Amino acid sequence: MGKTVIEHVLSRLQDIGIRDVFGVAGDFAFPINDAVVNCNGMRWVGSCNELNAAYSADGYARIHGMAALCTTYAVGELSAINGVAGAYAENLPIFHLVGMPASRTQAERRVVHHTLGNGEFELFYKMAEPVVCARAIMTPENCAEETERLIAAALYHRRPVYMAFPTDYATSPVVGTAPPRPEPKSDPDALAAATTAILAALSEARTACVLPGSLVSRIGLTAKVRDLITTSNLPFATMLWDKSLLDETLPNYVGMYDGKLMNEEVRAFIEGSDLVLGIGAVLTDFNSGSFTANIERSKSINVQHHSVRVGEAVFNNVEMKDVLVKLTAARIARKDIKTPKAQGLGKPVGKPDDPITADYLYARWEQMLKEDDILVTETGTSSMGLAFARMPKGSTFYNQTLWGSIGWATPAAFGAAMASPGRRVILITGEGSHQLTAQEVSQFHRFGLKPLIFVLNNDGYLIERLLAKDPESYYNDLAKWHYHKLPEALGCDGWMTMRVTTCGELDEAIRMAESCGTGAYVEVVTDKYAASPLSKKMHESLATLYA
Amino acid sequence: MGKTVIEHVLSRLQDIGIRDVFGVAGDFAFPINDAVVNCNGMRWVGSCNELNAAYSADGYARIHGMAALCTTYAVGELSAINGVAGAYAENLPIFHLVGMPASRTQAERRVVHHTLGNGEFELFYKMAEPVVCARAIMTPENCAEETERLIAAALYHRRPVYMAFPTDYATSPVVGTAPPRPEPKSDPDALAAATTAILAALSEARTACVLPGSLVSRIGLTAKVRDLITTSNLPFATMLWDKSLLDETLPNYVGMYDGKLMNEEVRAFIEGSDLVLGIGAVLTDFNSGSFTANIERSKSINVQHHSVRVGEAVFNNVEMKDVLVKLTAARIARKDIKTPKAQGLGKPVGKPDDPITADYLYARWEQMLKEDDILVTETGTSSMGLAFARMPKGSTFYNQTLWGSIGWATPAAFGAAMASPGRRVILITGEGSHQLTAQEVSQFHRFGLKPLIFVLNNDGYLIERLLAKDPESYYNDLAKWHYHKLPEALGCDGWMTMRVTTCGELDEAIRMAESCGTGAYVEVVTDKYAASPLSKKMHESLATLYA
Repeated sequence: MGKTVIEHVLSRLQDIGIRDVFGVAGDFAFPINDAVVNCNGMRWVGSCNELNAAYSADGYARIHGMAALCTTYAVGELSAINGVAGAYAENLPIFHLVGMPASRTQAERRVVHHTLGNGEFELFYKMAEPVVCARAIMTPENCAEETERLIAAALYHRRPVYMAFPTDYATSPVVGTAPPRPEPKSDPDALAAATTAILAALSEARTACVLPGSLVSRIGLTAKVRDLITTSNLPFATMLWDKSLLDETLPNYVGMYDGKLMNEEVRAFIEGSDLVLGIGAVLTDFNSGSFTANIERSKSINVQHHSVRVGEAVFNNVEMKDVLVKLTAARIARKDIKTPKAQGLGKPVGKPDDPITADYLYARWEQMLKEDDILVTETGTSSMGLAFARMPKGSTFYNQTLWGSIGWATPAAFGAAMASPGRRVILITGEGSHQLTAQEVSQFHRFGLKPLIFVLNNDGYLIERLLAKDPESYYNDLAKWHYHKLPEALGCDGWMTMRVTTCGELDEAIRMAESCGTGAYVEVVTDKYAASPLSKKMHESLATLYA
Repeated sequence: MGKTVIEHVLSRLQDIGIRDVFGVAGDFAFPINDAVVNCNGMRWVGSCNELNAAYSADGYARIHGMAALCTTYAVGELSAINGVAGAYAENLPIFHLVGMPASRTQAERRVVHHTLGNGEFELFYKMAEPVVCARAIMTPENCAEETERLIAAALYHRRPVYMAFPTDYATSPVVGTAPPRPEPKSDPDALAAATTAILAALSEARTACVLPGSLVSRIGLTAKVRDLITTSNLPFATMLWDKSLLDETLPNYVGMYDGKLMNEEVRAFIEGSDLVLGIGAVLTDFNSGSFTANIERSKSINVQHHSVRVGEAVFNNVEMKDVLVKLTAARIARKDIKTPKAQGLGKPVGKPDDPITADYLYARWEQMLKEDDILVTETGTSSMGLAFARMPKGSTFYNQTLWGSIGWATPAAFGAAMASPGRRVILITGEGSHQLTAQEVSQFHRFGLKPLIFVLNNDGYLIERLLAKDPESYYNDLAKWHYHKLPEALGCDGWMTMRVTTCGELDEAIRMAESCGTGAYVEVVTDKYAASPLSKKMHESLATLYA
């Protein structure tokens, strides 16, 4: 017998690089679950719940380039849907495999569990539409073609796709075959015109700088952008969403650009340049200092995924990859541009017995960072503080800057660790965010991973206190947990855990965490309003942020 | 100034009985959050995450008749959507209040956080469509009318409604007024015909019995059904979803009906009756013993929410409430029908040093139940065991039988406790399900509640082992937690916690839990395959369950 529908799909996913499937098992998904555990070289990664599974797949895809997620019908897929939407917003191809009741159950409109009781079985497939770039209910007849269509869509758009498997179809043999679809190519004339326009603008500009966006790494073009920047010696800055895309130790790195909110020197340099060459950069609210960034359109270029804009001129059907190849081959004349020097956070300020202030904390965390570290930071004051740390060579900073779903960081850090067991993974999260998804800490231990986890306990949702009308509104309060006791309850036997309230204790905890040889979990207690500089500025920028 | 949009909505929700709003705060929801905390007599109940908030609202609505939920835009509402869908499936009116970016942000298609970056702001409003019975994006101009429309829809359909509030509209004054909508009434002729048909069928039947469904309690008609049954002396049975709707101590209670899977005597009685009078009963898969129930259509009646079926005859535009009033007024002649006597689980079988078996466990739990207890049970082998316990007077059993989303029980028990602080709340959940939502245990302590929590630790998803092809498939394994240490980590200071592995220890734990005066959390460890009788039968019924 030939391959079954699910075997065929898994085999094609393996071809393109899928090894791990995150998810929660469920009866309508058993054919998928069974096929994964029976597929050579594929691993089932059982998450505590489906949203956490989706976040983990997100974190995994940031490093591995793609990920797979499997949930059961209705209750499972809907629980995961916010995580899938986040992957859509942040350009991560996730293959979401969804179990579905058997075709006969559907045809007979049976009132079975995990339904609304109305005999409608395609409602959840329809609900997925806005948050995936393609979707299909797989059958033996459509399987060969649809698999290729969905793979091509996920890779081209770098967005999630949705594949539903009725239980009986999943285990039926595939009918027919279909070849992989070729990747769409640039239109040669448009590509030539776009490249010429970019090169002309670059050559005319006395001063120029590059703003690379996170999309570059999503498409797998980081090395090409690095080449372009090092050969051309063009200075570059990054924005929050894009931080650490290129090594922050490169000599032409000028620092973080965040509109008028931070780093006035960097802002003046970027906005004063004759030309700003964006490569996949997007001026979202949090990328643009609450819309205080002000780059003149006429003085800017943006190389997007499938198009290029040079000033007001738009060139369609042009692939970012092809543009980068052309630009690198053109050997842009090196300019000698006077630039700001990228700054870090400096020395931690505080004495050992002092309470932990923001001034001490972020600088101390920066000191801790090492080459090749993976730093996963949660939306909130902590990521806003860490964004201005200077990252060591090869280390990477991850944050869900556009979607900004709190709770993301803990499972995403687990996913990142699964994708790169050889690298050190550091998770830094606020305690409010941590409460949403804290159970996933248990998975690190289960899979033998040794993360460094820091939970910043400032007695509430601090970023919300800074943005709300009344910072003391009790809706920003939390149940008071003893965070440092969580790993033990969650089965992380042998982990180093600590609760610290002073600078000296923090130092000691970091030293122990780095040397203990196990996972480490440190609860960092600060004053309720110990906020990173950017998060304070956010408070001052309400007018532009919410305009 | 008159009321703002959000003040108006909250005031109308208060009119109909809403007191508590479950949710997670967020910047686009601040106008809602602020209005709740500033509204006299209304309370904000901050949950650990949005799905848990939705489940808590579900549990609350089961007791209070309705509930309110508030989440922020996109990330919040999508996280909650599985819980809202469950409330739809199980007929619980939840008012879902969703924060939304300001109208100008939407009109300018700004790329702000919590969006997909594509300038589309109504996608999530559209995604909610299948899981709510009505929805609106509230504006100053539509607020008065839409509020009445949505309240009427929620109460008439007993399903969730969705109300989105752009931040600027939320705080603008309402324009105009609108009167509350009258409740739809039965068509008098159809009502008369339906009632006559029911009475005729009842009078002709030599033997008859009633099958009341959970919908009865959702519509608030429990007392009316109890009156009907006590005055007519008709025997009644219940199915899983409907358990404890009426007191199981009533003399005409015959027991649980579960098709061919359980209680042969009850099955023979029900299916052998000349007439089965369903009142809101639904033969879902888990209500019908995996579709082994076999009630002849010609010998049955079903009084539904807005219609009645008598044999093959359907009467539309007939309200259940009106039918019950008519039937009670008709003083149905009392029949003397020989019925089975409702059985409980009997004496626990096991010696103090024995490991805890299913035979011991469920019978021991039954012994523990007291009058007026609220028992919340999770989908899985534990609810399938407890469903056959006989509930004391006034005590109620809750389970999400149709939607069956694992993880529901823990936050739902919290919601139930919030709705009825005077009653004892017992949560019984499997550990696999508990992992999805365990953080919500912290909320019991935060709000001064004292639940009895039992977590059944059988080393994996037991019900799935019984339904899967290979029970040992590792996708049914879990991260190994030390469950009994969770309450301490989650800040439940002073709680009684215990881990028990023998019958004697279980007895001791129950004694301590009942007398400690604090919340109690007991981890009950059993063999991997210690399954309740029904869950074993489920394994044997795969052919009809998944046919």
